[in-house]
Amino acid sequence: MNKRIVFFYTGRIMQVEAALFSLPLIVSIIYREPHFWAFIVSAAISLAIGFALTLLSRPQKKNLFVKEGFVIVALSWTLMSVVGCLPFFISGEIPNFVDALFETVSGFTTTGASVLTEPGMAVTVETLSRGMLFWRSFTHFIGGMGVLVLVMAILPIEGSKSIHLMRAEMPGPIVGKLVPKAKSTALILYIIYVAMTAIEAILLLFGGMSVFESLCLAFGTAGTGGFAPLMSSINSYSSYIQWVITAFMFLFGVNFNLYYLILVGKIGQVIKSRELWCYCGIVVTSVSIICANIFNTCNGFGDALRTSAFNVASYMSSTGYGTVATNEWPYLSKAILVILMFVGACAGSTGGGLKVSRVMMLFKIMRRDLKKTLHPRQVSLLTFEGKKVDDQTISNVSSYFLVYLVIFAAVCFALTLEPMFDFGAAFTATLSCLNNIGPFFSATASVASYANFSIFAKILLTVTMLFGRLEIYPMLFALSPSTWMEK
Amino acid sequence: MNKRIVFFYTGRIMQVEAALFSLPLIVSIIYREPHFWAFIVSAAISLAIGFALTLLSRPQKKNLFVKEGFVIVALSWTLMSVVGCLPFFISGEIPNFVDALFETVSGFTTTGASVLTEPGMAVTVETLSRGMLFWRSFTHFIGGMGVLVLVMAILPIEGSKSIHLMRAEMPGPIVGKLVPKAKSTALILYIIYVAMTAIEAILLLFGGMSVFESLCLAFGTAGTGGFAPLMSSINSYSSYIQWVITAFMFLFGVNFNLYYLILVGKIGQVIKSRELWCYCGIVVTSVSIICANIFNTCNGFGDALRTSAFNVASYMSSTGYGTVATNEWPYLSKAILVILMFVGACAGSTGGGLKVSRVMMLFKIMRRDLKKTLHPRQVSLLTFEGKKVDDQTISNVSSYFLVYLVIFAAVCFALTLEPMFDFGAAFTATLSCLNNIGPFFSATASVASYANFSIFAKILLTVTMLFGRLEIYPMLFALSPSTWMEK
Repeated sequence: MNKRIVFFYTGRIMQVEAALFSLPLIVSIIYREPHFWAFIVSAAISLAIGFALTLLSRPQKKNLFVKEGFVIVALSWTLMSVVGCLPFFISGEIPNFVDALFETVSGFTTTGASVLTEPGMAVTVETLSRGMLFWRSFTHFIGGMGVLVLVMAILPIEGSKSIHLMRAEMPGPIVGKLVPKAKSTALILYIIYVAMTAIEAILLLFGGMSVFESLCLAFGTAGTGGFAPLMSSINSYSSYIQWVITAFMFLFGVNFNLYYLILVGKIGQVIKSRELWCYCGIVVTSVSIICANIFNTCNGFGDALRTSAFNVASYMSSTGYGTVATNEWPYLSKAILVILMFVGACAGSTGGGLKVSRVMMLFKIMRRDLKKTLHPRQVSLLTFEGKKVDDQTISNVSSYFLVYLVIFAAVCFALTLEPMFDFGAAFTATLSCLNNIGPFFSATASVASYANFSIFAKILLTVTMLFGRLEIYPMLFALSPSTWMEK
Repeated sequence: MNKRIVFFYTGRIMQVEAALFSLPLIVSIIYREPHFWAFIVSAAISLAIGFALTLLSRPQKKNLFVKEGFVIVALSWTLMSVVGCLPFFISGEIPNFVDALFETVSGFTTTGASVLTEPGMAVTVETLSRGMLFWRSFTHFIGGMGVLVLVMAILPIEGSKSIHLMRAEMPGPIVGKLVPKAKSTALILYIIYVAMTAIEAILLLFGGMSVFESLCLAFGTAGTGGFAPLMSSINSYSSYIQWVITAFMFLFGVNFNLYYLILVGKIGQVIKSRELWCYCGIVVTSVSIICANIFNTCNGFGDALRTSAFNVASYMSSTGYGTVATNEWPYLSKAILVILMFVGACAGSTGGGLKVSRVMMLFKIMRRDLKKTLHPRQVSLLTFEGKKVDDQTISNVSSYFLVYLVIFAAVCFALTLEPMFDFGAAFTATLSCLNNIGPFFSATASVASYANFSIFAKILLTVTMLFGRLEIYPMLFALSPSTWMEK
């Protein structure tokens, strides 16, 4: 492995993070908050690490391969999280380092699992200063589209094959370029991303929200994260605001390539997207069933529809914003949410989960293999979105699913080492963190929130969130000693 | 599809079942029980159906293909279960038909899930007559090695390709012949099976058990079923008897091909079996961890070792005999048991679950595909037990796993339609029935036993047990309309 290029890129990411700290710093200064210095110190540390890495390891060979792409992504996300939690920690607003790291990783990975939403604790979202709340929500925005995609979009990248960086960071089974140059693809994606976030923030402003709140909520939706600046998440907002957020949670779960196709006028191709149809179909079906199922606990049809649409969009897009205590829903509705948590959003979106297209392919593979069992000699082609899927992609999709299940089982198993967990809590907390969703279901009040979790469980789930956001392989390769031993 | 041959074989099975009713009939007569007539009536019905089917549909073409093999197995197991539950139902000893069918399917599929073990109910194992208890345990013995394998072993089979019957009925990813002729293979397997059962029964007799009880328990172990004639399962027996049963649960979970190899003196090949080593390794590891984990609730090391060994063997071999309330064990031990439930016994044994060899192959496929992700052009061979595994087998193994998970999720989801189920109960009851194990874990006392389940849940799990025992495909093809429409 080309270690120099790995460290070089990681250094670049740290420099970018230093720059990103300026936004919460401005918020802190606007609100005249005493902890503004924490962002300056963190930015200085980030910058120092960044320059140290880039200066010490300027690479001779500038080509990137798959493995380097994976390791750069894993390493820079980990380092970015450790430095990213410094403002919370050094300001003392989240005095426990593990909590600060959990919250930051949850932010960057757009999970939205929070240790700050348990009423009655010493530290909650409502004890945090505005600057910190802004940074907390802003991490969702940074993590949503990906920081390496950002680097590719704005910094000059030398050498070729930088598409490997994008492939390693962007979720989904197939990552393609929109335009021939990877750099332009990254730029287009970011422009769409920023524009959509801005539109949502403006619509929220129309709902009578403050600029601060509308930005925080728009960041949380854009990254499909789920952090909100209030303890009650979205519950206390008007139904107009809830509908705006529902719509944008749904929209940020769509493959961004489709937005590009709309921009360049290729609406026909958008309509032909099987993944989009499937995504919409699942949403409509789930909303209908849940709406009927929870009807008698709601105030009429409007409330039932809004509540079910909001939560379906929230769980499926892996955002995790809440308006009601879904933990108290009937089992059927909870079971549907669990299925949505597994499936997740579309590939190429900012959402988590297995991704709709991957699930569709798994079903296609299954159907093909069932046919093969009966007619071993028959050759059957597997197509997706009108194109033939090659054997390499098929084997990637099924092995990703296998690896995913093994990681899932291992984390779920390790959580049961803590006697506090009931089976449902361990299962859904694992699912929630691995798929970057946020909320989980618990039958016992003692593990109702991540804040109640043990240090062991918090650390385990912090790593799990990184595994989930980066789709396992980067972390797996970065953690394997053989990767580092290779020349 | 050749429907004639399907019905013809199904008829043969019904004739064999009629003959099998003679054993519980003899038991009933020995104990001078009033309900002996129920076996005579059931045998007569079975015989009538059998002759009707064989006479009406004598096939012109005698060749069997994969599809016919699947459908014969699915159809004959279903019919066998419906007729097999008649003694319980017409004698009025289990007056509810759904309960009687559940119990019979649980018997044939060697699940051992029982609606008769809830204290205080009107109908329990202790209200059943000896004849019925014998029949109940005997269904385990019949289902363990498979009734079509029995037919192949004892009846003259015309036409070729009867290996497809064996492949459809025997569990595991690869079913091979021990000797060139399928008929002789079936006979050898049955001889080993009967001999081992006899040895166990004799060893149990030495422990001071009655002939009746030792036969029932040996049948339950041989088929890795789990029905016991007492409410307390194995709890009230001496530690000698518990150790004997532990040893035989372990032994019946081993691939029977290995016993054949021992008989013909090829010990070297047995020692080289990776699946056997892996099976032993999992057992030893699990026993060690559980033994340490439950140590302080036991009376010394001997008790802890016996209890953990018994339950590990019971869960992993999918027998489901119990000595203690594992539901009250610490989560770690319960989590290990859940993993063992998934893995199951060796291929080619009477045990259920995914099978050790299939799990090993899944891990090998995963490792190969991980390597491929990094080095797309590198060709890597997948070997198992020293032989190259062809692409067809690899795709079969992974697609079986996918289909398995889909069925699992669907059943688990459907169970949550019943508000009575907690998540853990729905999950483990599905796992238990699909993998033919028996016991499940519940956090709520109201669903502590299958007897408390709703009619819907009982019917659903009855079908699930058949899916599990026949490894999904036969039931799937038999239930698909296109199978029956094909010429």
